[in-house]
Amino acid sequence: MHAGLRASGPKADLALVIADEPASAAGVFTKNVMAAAPVAFCKAALAASPSGTARAVLVNAGQANAATGAAGAADCEASAAALKAALPAASAPGDILLLSTGVIGRRIKLDALAAALPALVSGAGPGPADAHHAAVAITTTDTVSKAAALEVELAPGGPTVRVGGMAKGSGMIHPDMATMLAVLTTDAAVAPPLWASILRAGAAASFNQITVDGDTSTNDTVIGLASGKAAGCGLMTSEADPGVATLTAAVTALLQGLAKAIAWDGEGATCLVEVAVAGAESDADARQVAKAVVGSSLVKAAIFGGDPNWGRIACAAGYAGVPFPPDALNITLGPIALMSAGQPLAFDEAAASAYLKGTAAVHGTVAVGIEVGPGPGAGLAWGCDLSYEYVTINAEYTT
Amino acid sequence: MHAGLRASGPKADLALVIADEPASAAGVFTKNVMAAAPVAFCKAALAASPSGTARAVLVNAGQANAATGAAGAADCEASAAALKAALPAASAPGDILLLSTGVIGRRIKLDALAAALPALVSGAGPGPADAHHAAVAITTTDTVSKAAALEVELAPGGPTVRVGGMAKGSGMIHPDMATMLAVLTTDAAVAPPLWASILRAGAAASFNQITVDGDTSTNDTVIGLASGKAAGCGLMTSEADPGVATLTAAVTALLQGLAKAIAWDGEGATCLVEVAVAGAESDADARQVAKAVVGSSLVKAAIFGGDPNWGRIACAAGYAGVPFPPDALNITLGPIALMSAGQPLAFDEAAASAYLKGTAAVHGTVAVGIEVGPGPGAGLAWGCDLSYEYVTINAEYTT
Repeated sequence: MHAGLRASGPKADLALVIADEPASAAGVFTKNVMAAAPVAFCKAALAASPSGTARAVLVNAGQANAATGAAGAADCEASAAALKAALPAASAPGDILLLSTGVIGRRIKLDALAAALPALVSGAGPGPADAHHAAVAITTTDTVSKAAALEVELAPGGPTVRVGGMAKGSGMIHPDMATMLAVLTTDAAVAPPLWASILRAGAAASFNQITVDGDTSTNDTVIGLASGKAAGCGLMTSEADPGVATLTAAVTALLQGLAKAIAWDGEGATCLVEVAVAGAESDADARQVAKAVVGSSLVKAAIFGGDPNWGRIACAAGYAGVPFPPDALNITLGPIALMSAGQPLAFDEAAASAYLKGTAAVHGTVAVGIEVGPGPGAGLAWGCDLSYEYVTINAEYTT
Repeated sequence: MHAGLRASGPKADLALVIADEPASAAGVFTKNVMAAAPVAFCKAALAASPSGTARAVLVNAGQANAATGAAGAADCEASAAALKAALPAASAPGDILLLSTGVIGRRIKLDALAAALPALVSGAGPGPADAHHAAVAITTTDTVSKAAALEVELAPGGPTVRVGGMAKGSGMIHPDMATMLAVLTTDAAVAPPLWASILRAGAAASFNQITVDGDTSTNDTVIGLASGKAAGCGLMTSEADPGVATLTAAVTALLQGLAKAIAWDGEGATCLVEVAVAGAESDADARQVAKAVVGSSLVKAAIFGGDPNWGRIACAAGYAGVPFPPDALNITLGPIALMSAGQPLAFDEAAASAYLKGTAAVHGTVAVGIEVGPGPGAGLAWGCDLSYEYVTINAEYTT
């Protein structure tokens, strides 16, 4: 709903996710030293719940409540108290989680927030329109809202569970906007420690593999709630339980969908860039190489310019911090092989440039393929190109 | 001299530094897995000299001799053999060091290089004009050549030594140009292991503290030669010897001057940005924070836009990977305090913006000051702003 928290405009700016009964809760948070007050609040809340569950996630856009000191922490406590008054079911320790996005250094407008909560609680519903409104409310300078859902059988003929999520983010940091938030829900039955492990694995393969500008914000938060309401779904408590691998794959796929939506909506982007690395010693090594390439300003600028610049790709792979034999490096751009065994190929430069320009024309996906050896490790990373518009957005905006 | 190695134009493209007698030699090299053939050649040469000395450094611009496989290594051997024929004094193992800069994936034009060497050797001289010509010959897309020299007494009334150097570089990687090279000479008398240690310390506080775009090239190399020819300068062999601290400070100052010249000439830069961090637990921690801030695309774009965006500076300091108490963070921009004790101050935004725009107008230095606590650690890093011109240079250039 619109609570009047944003500096301007009638856009919705407050969203609430309610679990009808206590849901297994987990979170993944920014590692920034200057982490915002709601990040500290969530960490404390997750630790405070004896059962590892939560009931409500409140998300505001407009003020990041970062660099706000003791006053920011007090604002979190006051926000939670106001929500508890409007939603008495969420009264146990750790039941309420708070996420904020908006301008760093600004405190939340507590009066407007408290005044809006009763209507927000009474208006909450389970329909697709409700979910869409929430996904819109948490955006800041995003050009589109991001939400996804899927349904999967945990085993053939076995219980079917649903996973849904929403996210916001368009630069790793916006013009003073802090930044990447996501809320994930599922009706699978999964014990809190295992749920936390699944969420971490999914985030590692998705949100931790996107970069728009290399900046890690003060507010990055992913929250997951698992209700256990799926028919016939027995409680999963260990990695070895049936269905856990499928649920992990489903969560990862959903988070990757949201992560790609964020990268695609990167500031000034004309295309999504997907870098796939294979042949590394481990998946972690492959992901590290993929992220270095997709984060290289020179690679990003070359893609914007329609330049099939294999040298920059090779160089970025080389400085990723992962050792590999230089003469094992193979690089492809879409369907075109650029480099083999560590040395450039004579490729059709016009066709390669046409591939880049044609992809950008439809705001599509540029695919970069990299092999670094014969190992089993593979990984993906996503980003976007570097355009004039990125500089415009980040230079011409004034605090 | 002009040897015809560059793709176009009559600009000089081959430089030679000769030591009249064996000089203590040391090098600092890129950590890129895809390191160029001349990097491997230099490392082997330094290891091959029983006395730890060298006689000649040959630098070519035009081809980086990177991603050239076995052929590139053979070209290095052939280049060194040709130089040995033209300069018989450099016949001992490890006497010759090779540096290359230019397009990745291109082999050196061996015939042109070999044909030019006799004239290059016979024309070499000790004068300032010779040094200037060498500094120009090693540049690629640099807009200015970079050279500096200083003279210092190792102790009051003690021996006087000279330190001189030249460097090239304007992005961490140019449009396919690989990239940062520097050659340093001194007439101080210093044993090879100690000289290597002094050179590493100087590079850590200078070239390792600049960033234009975060990309680490395949060819980055710093070579130092110490002749021992200074009158009255006894051989220094240990960190504790008199004069070592002064020599280290002199080398560091000279390398910092060259490093700042590279950052100031960064692609598309309108100003040099100097970030000074104090109050860290160690100098290494302080340098790490300074480098994260000066490398943030968002900070760089804000400076280009004349935006005193303390939030981006605080956020970049926070993700540098160095723990500090958030409420200890102080930030200044030139003479203006922006943030104190982890929270924003009410500052004169118009004056802060005028400081940025006025500095850019004269292509001057923007000074960012950061305190992260009460510790003794301090460090500097240098970079430049992020402008439309950076995108133009790196997107519109086509391989």
